[in-house]
Amino acid sequence: MGAVRAVEPLHLRLLRLLRDNGAVSRAELADRLEMPRPRLLAELERLVSLGYVAEAGLAASRGGRRSTLVELSPNLRFAAVDLGASSIDVEIVNGRLEPVVAYAEPADIRSGPKGTLLRVNELLHKAKVDGAYERLDAVGIGVPGPVSFRDGVPVSPPIMPGWDRFPVRELLTREHGCPAVVDNDVNIMAIGERHGGVAHSVDDFLFVKIGTGVGCGIYLGGEVYRGTDGCAGDIGHIQVDSHGPMCSCGNVGCLEALFSGAAIAKDATAAARAGGSPALAERLAANGSVTAVDVAEGAIEGDVVCIRLIRDGGRRVGGVLAGLVSFANPSMIVIGGGLAQLGHILLAEIRSVVYRRSLPLATGNLPVVLSELGSRAGVTGAAVLASDMAFMEAS
Amino acid sequence: MGAVRAVEPLHLRLLRLLRDNGAVSRAELADRLEMPRPRLLAELERLVSLGYVAEAGLAASRGGRRSTLVELSPNLRFAAVDLGASSIDVEIVNGRLEPVVAYAEPADIRSGPKGTLLRVNELLHKAKVDGAYERLDAVGIGVPGPVSFRDGVPVSPPIMPGWDRFPVRELLTREHGCPAVVDNDVNIMAIGERHGGVAHSVDDFLFVKIGTGVGCGIYLGGEVYRGTDGCAGDIGHIQVDSHGPMCSCGNVGCLEALFSGAAIAKDATAAARAGGSPALAERLAANGSVTAVDVAEGAIEGDVVCIRLIRDGGRRVGGVLAGLVSFANPSMIVIGGGLAQLGHILLAEIRSVVYRRSLPLATGNLPVVLSELGSRAGVTGAAVLASDMAFMEAS
Repeated sequence: MGAVRAVEPLHLRLLRLLRDNGAVSRAELADRLEMPRPRLLAELERLVSLGYVAEAGLAASRGGRRSTLVELSPNLRFAAVDLGASSIDVEIVNGRLEPVVAYAEPADIRSGPKGTLLRVNELLHKAKVDGAYERLDAVGIGVPGPVSFRDGVPVSPPIMPGWDRFPVRELLTREHGCPAVVDNDVNIMAIGERHGGVAHSVDDFLFVKIGTGVGCGIYLGGEVYRGTDGCAGDIGHIQVDSHGPMCSCGNVGCLEALFSGAAIAKDATAAARAGGSPALAERLAANGSVTAVDVAEGAIEGDVVCIRLIRDGGRRVGGVLAGLVSFANPSMIVIGGGLAQLGHILLAEIRSVVYRRSLPLATGNLPVVLSELGSRAGVTGAAVLASDMAFMEAS
Repeated sequence: MGAVRAVEPLHLRLLRLLRDNGAVSRAELADRLEMPRPRLLAELERLVSLGYVAEAGLAASRGGRRSTLVELSPNLRFAAVDLGASSIDVEIVNGRLEPVVAYAEPADIRSGPKGTLLRVNELLHKAKVDGAYERLDAVGIGVPGPVSFRDGVPVSPPIMPGWDRFPVRELLTREHGCPAVVDNDVNIMAIGERHGGVAHSVDDFLFVKIGTGVGCGIYLGGEVYRGTDGCAGDIGHIQVDSHGPMCSCGNVGCLEALFSGAAIAKDATAAARAGGSPALAERLAANGSVTAVDVAEGAIEGDVVCIRLIRDGGRRVGGVLAGLVSFANPSMIVIGGGLAQLGHILLAEIRSVVYRRSLPLATGNLPVVLSELGSRAGVTGAAVLASDMAFMEAS
């Protein structure tokens, strides 16, 4: 019937409320959680003794006796890690998920799990030495490929040689003595955007990442939907042109073979060489190569070839999204990833195709918007996952 | 986290178990529901007094004192109605959803809600006069268009003029003095197939109906997914050929403009006139028109044009499904609706495209199968919905 909703344990709802709202009075907590006060006070006492919750002074008067404020313990620390195809982003955050320290550096995911995770652990230990934490309460990590969320391992990830079924969660748990949680990089971006970005409290939305590759994070009914094998959202390999170019997956005409960081760099290089684009030719001569950033800059300068490249890409993405809107009837689409920097020309083209091609009922009230968190979406989502994991275990 | 599962009320689990298993001993019920016996006995007593449950004699001995069997009351009756574009199917079923009486007749959904529902009510009253029931415990109805499941009304249904926001649920509730539930026709087929067909107890699957139009019922996590506006699964209007024919929706190259009951009849008529298909030319001459049934028969006789028509259609459907498999990563695809009669040639082509075009991880263990319930899928699902609704209210 779909009418029976999951009831989350009290301690999880309480800790999430403190995470997302900061210090709250006991009186307000009882109201917002719709709990009898004695049960709430008992639960709070338990969470204080476990070190999750701390006193935070007196609340402003509501007329009667002043209620005392509680907040998450200032000692809580979560590690959030976002592994990209060519980057490592690490943040240590406090209970409210505010960064205490952040590191970002280039890295090649193809160097394999041992070297990559060794470097992650080195960065985390450096943060400890620098005083960012004494102990971690949980680690959340995103990887650029399909993940068995239940098992905490990557599963047949196409661009991650050596990572298949590597025990990422187990290794991190053992190294840091705390729970760890592993998810796909696009899923953590979607989770981040829902926590602190444009999709705040939206229950059904698609987060479309257009970067080195193309992928989609799916929120349905307020939960990330991961599919039977953990690979839901793999939209980069949907065919958009049966006569299109060969894709790295071995098929022809996949979306990401036609529009992605790699594809637009290739098309832009060809355009620069063919003449007709002064903006791209100039940048090719100066740097020896052109990238999506050059195309974005060229478009801002009014270079028509750059504008056409972005529009063509937007039309391809829009065509795929129109189909997914007809299928999934989401209430929002968020565009993120590196190529979101192509900005409003891209967005306008995607919107135009989606609004024209999908059922009017499904698009009547469907915002198609850019990510607000940008490059921080991933680590934010990893921090949310880590805190949820730690909070679940506080029982 | 997705880790917190819905807990269904005891009475709902108990009544569903009796519906799906028939007479069960009290001892076995306590085991299967993992309930303390006293609480179970109290609940059973309550449900007996409400008229939902009845005694059914003694169970076979399990060694000690013989346990008594209980079953759903033999007086329970649900009405299941499946409105198609051009048909009305009605069944009265008992508590175990076995048909007591069934009617099927042609009807035009475009004649509007008043005339159509008047005829539904006439059929239901005829069933009463014929002794199929004394009173109905719930009515379930499927309609060929998007539905607000919460409000019990069709919403902007393209092929149902006059039905937009018509109070279908309210009218049926008032007429029959019992709860009523309204859903989309493809959703009820998916529900039926999961209850008594090939998708039995499968939690994540797509039910693809290929009939007059094309649509998709979506099961995710054991629940029907209906989308933000109730129109999820509208895959008939996904574009498969940007240079394709005009569709009734106003766009060009939609899947159902290229492959559906109407499209294949048009293509078959053209092929019959053009020569090259003896099987179709013969049937056109004999009947003045050709339909999908003629194409199916011609293919069985080995007519190459008929085989090609089916293969072309299968390739179109397969291309759309390959994209949806990449997106949703389901664990099964069921093909139903009138054109499922095109059978194994169609299925082979769909499979071939899906297996070739989707991520290997998503297709490694993905059955693509024909509906088992065929034309009874819809009424079966409507009966499941009606009984769930009645059982929910038994509290």
